[in-house]
Amino acid sequence: MKIKGNIIVGQSGGPTAVINSSLAGVIEAARDAGVKKIYGMHCGIEGLLKEDIVDLNDHIKTSQDLALLRRTPSAFLGSCRYKLPEIEGNEAVYEKLFGILEKYNIEYLLYNGGNDSMDTVKMLSDYAATHNKSQKFMGIPKTIDNDLPMTDHCPGFGSAAKYIAASMKEIIRDNAVYGAARTNIVIVEIMGRHAGWLTAASMLSKGPDCDGPDLVYLPEVAFDPKDFMKRVKELAKKKHSIVIAVSEGIKLADGRFVCELEGESGKLDAFGHKQLSGVGSYLASMITAETEFKARSIEFSTLQRCAAHLTSLTDADEAYGAGYLAAKKAMEGNTGMMVTIQVTSRKPYIVEYSQFDIHEIANVERKVPQSWIINDGTYVSDEFITYARPLIIGELQPHFAGGVPAHITLE
Amino acid sequence: MKIKGNIIVGQSGGPTAVINSSLAGVIEAARDAGVKKIYGMHCGIEGLLKEDIVDLNDHIKTSQDLALLRRTPSAFLGSCRYKLPEIEGNEAVYEKLFGILEKYNIEYLLYNGGNDSMDTVKMLSDYAATHNKSQKFMGIPKTIDNDLPMTDHCPGFGSAAKYIAASMKEIIRDNAVYGAARTNIVIVEIMGRHAGWLTAASMLSKGPDCDGPDLVYLPEVAFDPKDFMKRVKELAKKKHSIVIAVSEGIKLADGRFVCELEGESGKLDAFGHKQLSGVGSYLASMITAETEFKARSIEFSTLQRCAAHLTSLTDADEAYGAGYLAAKKAMEGNTGMMVTIQVTSRKPYIVEYSQFDIHEIANVERKVPQSWIINDGTYVSDEFITYARPLIIGELQPHFAGGVPAHITLE
Repeated sequence: MKIKGNIIVGQSGGPTAVINSSLAGVIEAARDAGVKKIYGMHCGIEGLLKEDIVDLNDHIKTSQDLALLRRTPSAFLGSCRYKLPEIEGNEAVYEKLFGILEKYNIEYLLYNGGNDSMDTVKMLSDYAATHNKSQKFMGIPKTIDNDLPMTDHCPGFGSAAKYIAASMKEIIRDNAVYGAARTNIVIVEIMGRHAGWLTAASMLSKGPDCDGPDLVYLPEVAFDPKDFMKRVKELAKKKHSIVIAVSEGIKLADGRFVCELEGESGKLDAFGHKQLSGVGSYLASMITAETEFKARSIEFSTLQRCAAHLTSLTDADEAYGAGYLAAKKAMEGNTGMMVTIQVTSRKPYIVEYSQFDIHEIANVERKVPQSWIINDGTYVSDEFITYARPLIIGELQPHFAGGVPAHITLE
Repeated sequence: MKIKGNIIVGQSGGPTAVINSSLAGVIEAARDAGVKKIYGMHCGIEGLLKEDIVDLNDHIKTSQDLALLRRTPSAFLGSCRYKLPEIEGNEAVYEKLFGILEKYNIEYLLYNGGNDSMDTVKMLSDYAATHNKSQKFMGIPKTIDNDLPMTDHCPGFGSAAKYIAASMKEIIRDNAVYGAARTNIVIVEIMGRHAGWLTAASMLSKGPDCDGPDLVYLPEVAFDPKDFMKRVKELAKKKHSIVIAVSEGIKLADGRFVCELEGESGKLDAFGHKQLSGVGSYLASMITAETEFKARSIEFSTLQRCAAHLTSLTDADEAYGAGYLAAKKAMEGNTGMMVTIQVTSRKPYIVEYSQFDIHEIANVERKVPQSWIINDGTYVSDEFITYARPLIIGELQPHFAGGVPAHITLE
C-alpha cells in the first residue's frame, strides 16, 4: 500500500481497560507502514476541533512504552462525549475540522469508541464523500456495554466481564462467611443502562467452586418488585447467603427505571435535593423494610471499566488487533467502516476480523437475546456462558512497581 | 517437642484475603509436628460451642489443596462475631467448651482474628490457668484494619492496602479522562471505623505516574465540613479531576460520625426508614449542593477485604508464617499469647516473629500516629508510605480456571 499522509487517532466515550491496547495497535500499524507522523487527538474530536493534538512519537517511543500503554486504564489521550452536529446547517464545523486535517497532512483518521463515536465516523466519512475529500475514516469498536451491532462482541467487554465475574465470586464467598448464624443478602449493582451483558457476566463466577449469583436481573425484561420479594423470601428458606446481580437499568413493566423510584417517592438528600441513589440500595432497603434479613448493596461503579489490573488477555489482544486492522484498512483506502470481530468457532476459540459499513452500526443497540434470559426473567442461561467464557480467558499481567500496577501518562 | 494431643483452629471476625494463608500455616505446622487430628471450628468459637467441627485432613489433602486454600478469600472454615462471656457467673459455658476439647483430645487451640478474637484467647487461657487445665491457647493476628497493638502490622492489612492502592490509582486515571471539559470529583469511601490505616493506604497509589488522592481524611482527626468545601473549591481552580479518600469513620469535632448526619437531617429511604448512607455519598451531595461540579462517590465495600485476586505476597507469606509459628509455639507449651510481627529493617525489608502476652493486646486499638497526619488533617506524610510500602510488595498469583480465580470450599 502507498501511504499518502499522516495518521490521527482519537479515543471517545467512557474508557475501558483495553482502549489503550487499541491505541497501541494503531501506533504499531502506522509504524509498520512507515507513516511519518502519528497524531493523537487530546480528548477526542472535541480536542481536534480545538487543534489540541499530540505527536505520539514524542510520547510512546520504546517497546516498554507500548507494553505500559497496553496496561494503562482510562483513555491515554483523554476522551470526550462530544457528538458532531448534523452536516446540513453546520458546514462550518466540518470545514474547520477538515482544515485542521489538511494543515497536518492527515489522510487517515481512526476513532475508537461506542455508538456515539461511530456516529462521528459516519458523519466525517459522509462529509468527505459529498465534498470530494480524500481522507479515510475508520471506527474501532470499544465499549464495556457490549452493545454495538454487527460484531460478535466489543473490545472492553471481556475485561469488564472478567472483573465482574472474579469480584462476584469473591463477594459470594465473603457473604457466606457467617454460615447459618444470620441471613445475609447482597445486591450487586452492575453497569448497563439498556443492555444486560455486564450483569449477565456475573454468571461467569459460577463453577465447581461457586454457585454464582442466586438471581440475575437484566434490563431486557420488565422487573416485578413483588415477584422479586417472593423469590428472596423463598431463597431465604433454603440458604443463608444470597447474592443478587442487578443491572442499573432495570425497569418496571410501565417503563419507569427502578433506580428512579426513590426520587419519585420524594426522597431528599441531606441538602434538600431529590436523590437518585442506585437500584441496588433501593432493593436492599426494600428487603430490610419487609423482612428481618440483613441486606446491603455493592456497586462496582467505575471500577468495572478501569480495573486494568485484571485485564482479559483475549480482550486486550483483540482490542490491539482491532486497532491495528482499522489503521491498516484505512491506509489501504477503506473508509466509513468499523472493524468487527467474528467468532468462527467458540471451542476452540477462533476469531476473524472484518469490517462493516458504519451506516449499519451507528446508533443501533444490541441487547442480550430474550431466549438467554430464563426463569421468568430472573436468571441467565448457559448459552450466555458459552458465548462469554472465551472472552475472559487469560490475563494481561500488570507491570508492578512498588506493589501497584505501573501506568504511562501523557503528562 | 512432645505432642500431647490434637489441634484445633478457628477463624473469627471479618475475613481478609489472607486469613486462609494463616490456616494453611497452622495445618502445615501440625503436620510437620506429627499431630494426629487437625480440627477446624466451623464458624469460630460459636461453632465449637455447638460441637460443629470438621476434620481438616478430610478437606485439605494435597499440596494443590493448600495452594488453593492460600488463594481463597473469606474464611474457609466460616467465621463468627461471638464474644465469650465473662468467666465469673458463666462457668457453664467454659465447662462445656473444655469438655468438648477433652472429648476430642484437643491440647492446642489456635484462634485467628482481631481484637474481639484475642479477647477469646485471653478468656480461654485465663480459665485454663485458674482451673488447672493443660490446653494451650495462641492467637494469630488478623485484621484489614491494622489496629492490633504490639505488632508492627497485621496480616490482612497488606492485601487490603494493595487492593486500595491499585484501585485508587485506576480510579484517579479514570476520573481524569475528560480533561478540562468538566470538573469531576470522586469521593472514595474506605473502611476503618476508628483507625485510618486503610484510608491512608490510598496514598500508596502515588508515584511518578500518579499524583495520588488530593485529600485524605482519617478518623484520627476531627473533620471540618467548611474547611473541606474551601479546599475542594481551591483545588478546582487548579485541576479538573479531584479524587478524595475518606474513612467511613470520620467524625466532626463534637464527636458525631459524618455518616450519621444524613440520618439526623431526617432523610428517609423510599420505605420511610431513617437511612444512613455512607459518608462518601454525603460529601458528594454536599459538593453538588454547593457547587456546579460533578461529584459522585465510590465505596470499596467488602471488596477491600475479599479481593484475593490482588493479594500481597508479603502479606500472604506473613499470614502463613504467623499461623505456622502460633501452632509451633502452642505445641512447645506456650499459651495466652498472640504472635506478633516485628520489622527489624524496612529497607531491605526484614521481619522477625515474636509473641506477646494476650492481656496486653486484647481490646486495645492502635491508630495512625498523629504526626503522620499532615496539612491540617487533610493528607498523610511520607512516613506512612515508608511504613506501608513493603507490606504490599509482591503478588500471590491466583490459579485461574475459566478466566476467574479458582477457590477451594468446605462443602
